[in-house]
Amino acid sequence: MRKYKRTSMKKLLVILLVAFANFSFGKTEINVADYGVKGDGSDSTAAVQKVLAAAKSAGGDVVIKFPKGRYDFAPNYAPEEYLFISNNDEGLKRIVFNLNGYENITIDGQGSDFIFHGFVNPFSVKNSKNINFKNFSVDVFRPFHNEGIVLESSPGSIVVEIPEEYPFEVQEGILKFIGKPDPLLWDDPKKVDIPYRSLLEFDTKRRETAYLARDYWLNKGCPAEKLDGRKVRIRHSLAKFTPGNTVVFQYQYRNHPTFAVSKSENVNFDNVTIYGAGGMGILGQNSRDIRVRNCKVTPSGNRMISCTADATHFVNCEGEIVLDSNLFENQMDDATNIHGIYEQIVSIDGDTAVTRLVHPQQHGFETFEAGQKVEFVGGRSMKTLAEGKITSVERINNELKRLKFAEPVSDSVKPNDAIAVIRDYPEIKITNNTIRRNRARGMLLNCRGKTLVENNLFQAPGAALLFEGDSCYWFEQGGVRDCTIRGNTFDNCRFGVWGKAIIDVAAGIKEDFETSRYNRNILIENNTFNVFDDTPLLNIYCVDGLVWRNNKVNKTSEYPARDIKKPEPFIIKHSDNIKIDN
Amino acid sequence: MRKYKRTSMKKLLVILLVAFANFSFGKTEINVADYGVKGDGSDSTAAVQKVLAAAKSAGGDVVIKFPKGRYDFAPNYAPEEYLFISNNDEGLKRIVFNLNGYENITIDGQGSDFIFHGFVNPFSVKNSKNINFKNFSVDVFRPFHNEGIVLESSPGSIVVEIPEEYPFEVQEGILKFIGKPDPLLWDDPKKVDIPYRSLLEFDTKRRETAYLARDYWLNKGCPAEKLDGRKVRIRHSLAKFTPGNTVVFQYQYRNHPTFAVSKSENVNFDNVTIYGAGGMGILGQNSRDIRVRNCKVTPSGNRMISCTADATHFVNCEGEIVLDSNLFENQMDDATNIHGIYEQIVSIDGDTAVTRLVHPQQHGFETFEAGQKVEFVGGRSMKTLAEGKITSVERINNELKRLKFAEPVSDSVKPNDAIAVIRDYPEIKITNNTIRRNRARGMLLNCRGKTLVENNLFQAPGAALLFEGDSCYWFEQGGVRDCTIRGNTFDNCRFGVWGKAIIDVAAGIKEDFETSRYNRNILIENNTFNVFDDTPLLNIYCVDGLVWRNNKVNKTSEYPARDIKKPEPFIIKHSDNIKIDN
Repeated sequence: MRKYKRTSMKKLLVILLVAFANFSFGKTEINVADYGVKGDGSDSTAAVQKVLAAAKSAGGDVVIKFPKGRYDFAPNYAPEEYLFISNNDEGLKRIVFNLNGYENITIDGQGSDFIFHGFVNPFSVKNSKNINFKNFSVDVFRPFHNEGIVLESSPGSIVVEIPEEYPFEVQEGILKFIGKPDPLLWDDPKKVDIPYRSLLEFDTKRRETAYLARDYWLNKGCPAEKLDGRKVRIRHSLAKFTPGNTVVFQYQYRNHPTFAVSKSENVNFDNVTIYGAGGMGILGQNSRDIRVRNCKVTPSGNRMISCTADATHFVNCEGEIVLDSNLFENQMDDATNIHGIYEQIVSIDGDTAVTRLVHPQQHGFETFEAGQKVEFVGGRSMKTLAEGKITSVERINNELKRLKFAEPVSDSVKPNDAIAVIRDYPEIKITNNTIRRNRARGMLLNCRGKTLVENNLFQAPGAALLFEGDSCYWFEQGGVRDCTIRGNTFDNCRFGVWGKAIIDVAAGIKEDFETSRYNRNILIENNTFNVFDDTPLLNIYCVDGLVWRNNKVNKTSEYPARDIKKPEPFIIKHSDNIKIDN
Repeated sequence: MRKYKRTSMKKLLVILLVAFANFSFGKTEINVADYGVKGDGSDSTAAVQKVLAAAKSAGGDVVIKFPKGRYDFAPNYAPEEYLFISNNDEGLKRIVFNLNGYENITIDGQGSDFIFHGFVNPFSVKNSKNINFKNFSVDVFRPFHNEGIVLESSPGSIVVEIPEEYPFEVQEGILKFIGKPDPLLWDDPKKVDIPYRSLLEFDTKRRETAYLARDYWLNKGCPAEKLDGRKVRIRHSLAKFTPGNTVVFQYQYRNHPTFAVSKSENVNFDNVTIYGAGGMGILGQNSRDIRVRNCKVTPSGNRMISCTADATHFVNCEGEIVLDSNLFENQMDDATNIHGIYEQIVSIDGDTAVTRLVHPQQHGFETFEAGQKVEFVGGRSMKTLAEGKITSVERINNELKRLKFAEPVSDSVKPNDAIAVIRDYPEIKITNNTIRRNRARGMLLNCRGKTLVENNLFQAPGAALLFEGDSCYWFEQGGVRDCTIRGNTFDNCRFGVWGKAIIDVAAGIKEDFETSRYNRNILIENNTFNVFDDTPLLNIYCVDGLVWRNNKVNKTSEYPARDIKKPEPFIIKHSDNIKIDN
């Protein structure tokens, strides 16, 4: 078993090759095979570290090429870094491709498949610039979600058959999902715990959330009884499922998003497929110019689920965000959510305030810097109360900061109000995408930059488009200022429980409805709405400026119609300058 | 609710006072009350940070004095640091007293009580020197363990009544322990989860583990049914309890040891009482000279449990370790364990080896440095195979390192063997202590320095003294070289299930029993053994050199006698130079 040192001739050759390539074309091409990356089922993580080191030292434009094939990656030899990833879970992560402080790198898979094993984070991009990912797929060897096929359903319990893909045990009366035997991992698979936090029913044939299915939240797991074979009786007080359908056990955490992009610039994804993730697909935060084009988020094999949370998600970004010609399907949450961050005001003392990142999945988020302008927002009204300029930031811990401002904080601001950076809000271009078969909504539009949603196909079980933002629970800053929704097809959306209309406002405004106008200037035109019942098309409040024109509505019989007593296609409250032109 | 700035006159006065004190006596006395630390039930954490900053800047000897009273501390304003704490759980911790890089500090509570709220670490001492803790007690507001009184026991289930002290809910058929309403914490107590991992029965009247009680390990919790009042029926296939006894739900993690001492020197504890902890009481690692004298680990109020793991524990320490005149009772694990760390050899390549910290609670432990001598040990034989000298250490992640040695590694060393630092093993003085009512063993003696265990009273449910060490599961380096056990009273020990004899060897030797001699030179003299049945007094193997002389054995009727078919007071296997002189 002893490994002997290889000759260093090969290394020398590689260095010479790299130097030559660099010299002759101003562009370095790295063939990962030269660094020991093998498509033979072995763990390529250690070899990838050599590739990344060579790429960093090469300088100039570097293209890292994988000969087309399947590559496997395990956490054993991965470097680690403590990552705060907004809307995912923070922690000390093992990261296979840890691009921290890189520039001008393209990773070209040339059609390869990358399979990640165990509790590992595939890609982190931080403090980097001009990074391109293209032509590869990412999958997880043992999925982070679990599934069972419903055999029987009776009040308070169901019998499911759990496919081989999802190893499990019933221990001391509780269902536990465990690891899959894997030669690349050191842990005993029986000791591995894949925790789950809810049950959700999917229609096995349609491969989407079942009609009007809702989340059944759990405590620590399901009380369960092992029956013969892979059959298990599980208990939940509210459980009511249709035999033949699929129960999805949602992964408890969001520890392992496929791509976490932080404090970076010009990051592009082209022809990348994400089959599975233990968190979101692409998460961008505090970054500028992220473009996702011709990509897919879709499950592999017979799995019902792709990402275990949102397909994409962008927080406090700038520049432009492009989502073009992508397929987003079967992820366990929205296709995208583009928002800012509010911190809560804990206390104010003249020109100083203590602020708090309240939501645990925002803890550690890098919100403020000296020199930045901020707005203070009513915690319950969501109205902008005042502005200020930060002169210093003292980080107390991952939750609290002590901010100093150029002037005393306005008397109108009180504890429990909120504060957000006034940024160069990004321009959003969401075009030519298909969004379907996921849990929850289509897309959450919470960005003050110019937002265009054009020529997409939405088949979302909840609201297709949602305007959110609140400073009391999620603390996500929203409030569009210039949003165009044009030429999309909203095809039988809202067959689930998430949202009140196909285009929906759910901003967290709790008071001052008469004067709070959180979303502004929305144009909805030339869209097609296929609807199977009298679902509201539009539900808005506290909006200033909305034009609805030239949209087509077609009736279908795709799902059973709900019995809606007083059908109202347009629900409009506390809003100004609304023009509905049917 | 707005807080106004106080006058800075007080601060100025304090600075002057500190300067004067420092000047006149070469010793600075800080009264915490001058920094806003209040004994009024409010959170003193923020004020303590000012005290510590002043102590650091004062220089010279600093005595931080708390006027006698009760002080409360919450995590909200605590600084944080990622701590790897051996035999506890790593993580990003909020630490109230975070002494990193401090010298010559005494914290004198003057009889005060410190109450810690929520998920917080009371004390961390790192890269520090000459630190003294004295005259205070530490308790936790909401304990990390939970208890229930057994009302009924039937096959597979018991009914317990859970005291008010331990808030709980039964959610979706599973018992969940939650937070206690607490004005100092921000989280909704109902959303707080205090996870548990096992059940253990305690004799309510004797306040110790029940006769022959064993751990019932759990999966994620207990299936449960809420009955009237605070009564709950919980299910466990093996559960068999005596009505009236107390079930202790052991805390799942060891996140919050009271004192974590790392890479420090001369740290002394005098007259400190630890009533509760979410982990060990005092953990010392990679440190020199730690002394614990006149201290107590004991539960407060009606609680059955003090620390939720070992009372004290020392890893890779040097200099001297003193445990004198302490009371260690009702902690959920041993009173002490003093050992080194083995890393496992993953691969060898000439003068280079990849090594691994296998046990998750050792991940991140700082084992090796350039210039250190190491020993290579047979993974299964525990025999020393060879020695080496480290020339460089590359940390791959919290689990793996790549070590380079001055010479090629001996051919006798193979993957799965182990490696440990050859240290200046500390001198151990364990004298005049009382150890009782805890789970598991009395003390684990796994140190190669001169070890003296004298004049202690052991009433341990398991082995009173255990010689362990293995390189296949715990990876704790043991192997005494000079150990004297003298003048102790072993009073009705081994009424539980942990260990085979009152003085016991359980080294992880799997092969070469004929030649492996892991523990050496043990003298056991002038002790008194009170025994209630034919329990073995001594169980040893692979020992070279043991003298048993002048020990007294008294028969008692303290517990029911077990039916031991072939009583053997001395079980001796594969050992040399053993002299038993009854």
